[in-house]
Amino acid sequence: MSVDYKAYFEQHREAHLNELKEWLAIPSISALSEHKGDVARAAEWIASKLKEAGLEHVEIHQTEGHPIVTADYLHAEGKPTLLIYGHYDVQPVDPLHLWQTPPFEPDIRDGKLYARGATDDKGQLFLHVKAVEAILKEEGELPVNIKFCIEGEEEVSSPNLPRYVDANKDKLTADAVLISDTSLLAPGKPAISTGLRGLCSMELTLHTANSDLHSGTYGGGVPNALHAMVSLLASLHDDKGRVSVEGFYDGVLELSPEMREEFAKQQFDEEKLKKDLELDALFGEEGYSFVERVGARPTLELNGVYGGFQGEGSKTVIPREAHAKITCRLVADQDPQAVLDAIEAHLKAHTPVGAKLTFKPKEKAFAFNIDPSHPMLQKAADAFENVYGTRALFTKDGGSIPIVERLSSTLNAPAVMMGFGLPDENLHAPNEHFNLENFDKGLLTIVEYLKLV
Amino acid sequence: MSVDYKAYFEQHREAHLNELKEWLAIPSISALSEHKGDVARAAEWIASKLKEAGLEHVEIHQTEGHPIVTADYLHAEGKPTLLIYGHYDVQPVDPLHLWQTPPFEPDIRDGKLYARGATDDKGQLFLHVKAVEAILKEEGELPVNIKFCIEGEEEVSSPNLPRYVDANKDKLTADAVLISDTSLLAPGKPAISTGLRGLCSMELTLHTANSDLHSGTYGGGVPNALHAMVSLLASLHDDKGRVSVEGFYDGVLELSPEMREEFAKQQFDEEKLKKDLELDALFGEEGYSFVERVGARPTLELNGVYGGFQGEGSKTVIPREAHAKITCRLVADQDPQAVLDAIEAHLKAHTPVGAKLTFKPKEKAFAFNIDPSHPMLQKAADAFENVYGTRALFTKDGGSIPIVERLSSTLNAPAVMMGFGLPDENLHAPNEHFNLENFDKGLLTIVEYLKLV
Repeated sequence: MSVDYKAYFEQHREAHLNELKEWLAIPSISALSEHKGDVARAAEWIASKLKEAGLEHVEIHQTEGHPIVTADYLHAEGKPTLLIYGHYDVQPVDPLHLWQTPPFEPDIRDGKLYARGATDDKGQLFLHVKAVEAILKEEGELPVNIKFCIEGEEEVSSPNLPRYVDANKDKLTADAVLISDTSLLAPGKPAISTGLRGLCSMELTLHTANSDLHSGTYGGGVPNALHAMVSLLASLHDDKGRVSVEGFYDGVLELSPEMREEFAKQQFDEEKLKKDLELDALFGEEGYSFVERVGARPTLELNGVYGGFQGEGSKTVIPREAHAKITCRLVADQDPQAVLDAIEAHLKAHTPVGAKLTFKPKEKAFAFNIDPSHPMLQKAADAFENVYGTRALFTKDGGSIPIVERLSSTLNAPAVMMGFGLPDENLHAPNEHFNLENFDKGLLTIVEYLKLV
Repeated sequence: MSVDYKAYFEQHREAHLNELKEWLAIPSISALSEHKGDVARAAEWIASKLKEAGLEHVEIHQTEGHPIVTADYLHAEGKPTLLIYGHYDVQPVDPLHLWQTPPFEPDIRDGKLYARGATDDKGQLFLHVKAVEAILKEEGELPVNIKFCIEGEEEVSSPNLPRYVDANKDKLTADAVLISDTSLLAPGKPAISTGLRGLCSMELTLHTANSDLHSGTYGGGVPNALHAMVSLLASLHDDKGRVSVEGFYDGVLELSPEMREEFAKQQFDEEKLKKDLELDALFGEEGYSFVERVGARPTLELNGVYGGFQGEGSKTVIPREAHAKITCRLVADQDPQAVLDAIEAHLKAHTPVGAKLTFKPKEKAFAFNIDPSHPMLQKAADAFENVYGTRALFTKDGGSIPIVERLSSTLNAPAVMMGFGLPDENLHAPNEHFNLENFDKGLLTIVEYLKLV
């Protein structure tokens, strides 16, 4: 590089972090309707930053849900075009009492920036805006064509973006989709994700009597919605952690020795994970390592279960209703609708006597996979190597970014997932944070990539 | 009777109901510390009514929890002494959205008074105060000696009253303890309870990792506190509703043919119960009728279960903790401490891999039983017969009033449980109410009883 971007970013570091904190302070929780105004504010904030960075055609598109922000710079004639995707919405924050500092009062401690959205995905997306701004400011032009497409509904499975993408294929067409919403393997060990799990989610309710009942007057003689619920939910797994739903594993690819070898390369330290999470034991399907379970096996997780009295003290009540929220992570060729159907059939067949089931399917998305030999991915690995001094490993990610598969297939472009988070940064949990080492190196890696492609 | 009490109570009906509504409007929820002031106000309210009624030595005794109110009238020389026990505290009100009118805005609809505490126990206790007041106003003196002992902690298992009773045995000594905190069998079918189930309660928490985790990054590879909880809780019962805890049934008396005959006399209509509760099926231990299950069998009920995300929308989280609140109703010679120990041992033995159990025992009380041939109980049946036109049946109640066993054994006096509620009055549930037919007849029945003993 003729320009010393390391010096540039060091010089602007404090200003950049203060800007990012401003954005993180906006509670743009897409799942909660009371935050609709905050989500809109977060969209306006990033739109104004795209303009400041020197991008053109900065537009905020209203949808039935939260807005989509687009912008572009298309003056690098004969050069490829990158579509940078990211999201400015964040997960809910409960349980709030477990946060050491409030989720929307960003705080830097021990070289980490703590806030909801710090790593997922405001912090990572912010890197791209500042990398583009740096090159435009220092060199007056970009070495590639850039399009931004930023949404506010990723955490609720992108209900409106697919329609927008279908209707604006020509506008969004690109040689690759560039996304930073995943993680390094560990500090100093960069990774490029070549696979994302699919997803389907659902809510269920069990009703028993038409009223809560007194456990003295009725206890032992009537169905209890909570007993029915724990019995029904317990039937979803066997005691080894395998999902007991018939047909659940249809479309799952058994691991080949080559795939197992690829996973083994990560040299994942399960003992360290146990220590970090303060767990006596890991838990999951027998016969698979942790990285295999998360990278190549589907899972059915209870995200929330509730019913009856939750207040202080006791209440001798037989609850009339109980609720559960469930998500599945899917792999390979699992069809999310088929999985939802299989679970619904299982739940219906196992609903205990005296209880009535209501089943509501919600989001669904296919898994995504890409061949790591694609040149756009190889160049991403080069960029990492030039900055981190270590070539990125190609990994399979356990998470789901449903829109990746949609963007890639609709635009017929490879998805390049350069993640700058770390696996233990508590995304979706209390005390989410972003390690500033990767904030600094991320900026440089993106600049490097834009110059390499 | 020389005085026409029917006419008297008709004449004062509106005023009495307005007074009771005033009391019901005070949210004296003993389980919730933010209502401590309300509980104290409810104590003061009833103390002032005891004074107005003409009772003497009206006193409010502070305790470590909520106050105890006492009063007496001891001028009926040579006549027996009744200790009237009742409670002015009420259950919590959630789920609030299921109430048709707010729980602390008493409302009369279709001859029923709706409010938290309407039947349990403010409404029933109020009858005694007004019955005593009526006789004193109309006749200038009572035909018996009366003591009142009213507490504000019944709904939290009376943690302070036993100590007060032990320390004030002489002051409280009586020929019988009179309590209205139970139910008729059905409209027009009075009952005197000769048995109450004992109780023990507990809270448990399961912890897995030291943080909530993202189900994408970790799902399938780490323990989920909710999976562990539903599996653990499901292990407490077999699929026929019998408690699976070893030793749980120790001390339970198997039903004799005579006892079964006594239960059969109630001619309980299970089909009507199903219809009233809109249940497809009742549920409980095989081989027992509903009245047997509730009257003579113990039960273990989940009163509350919660963990993870409960908000609107979805959250792909693996919860780090899950909670459950449990109460058991006990019968015959079951020892509440032994039952708690047995459950704790079961839970420890069945806690799934990767989860850590915290077990907190809470309340405990023995079951209570009395022989129905006692003259004080026979006279209560006479009083019912004179007012309702039907002799009261002697029943076993499924509920627990732990203090009854303590009062009766400490004071060496029979407990006379004349209930004026109805089994479907939603005590401990939304839309609690008190049928005003039993408000009217209850006043007359108490006057009758005071004259008969």
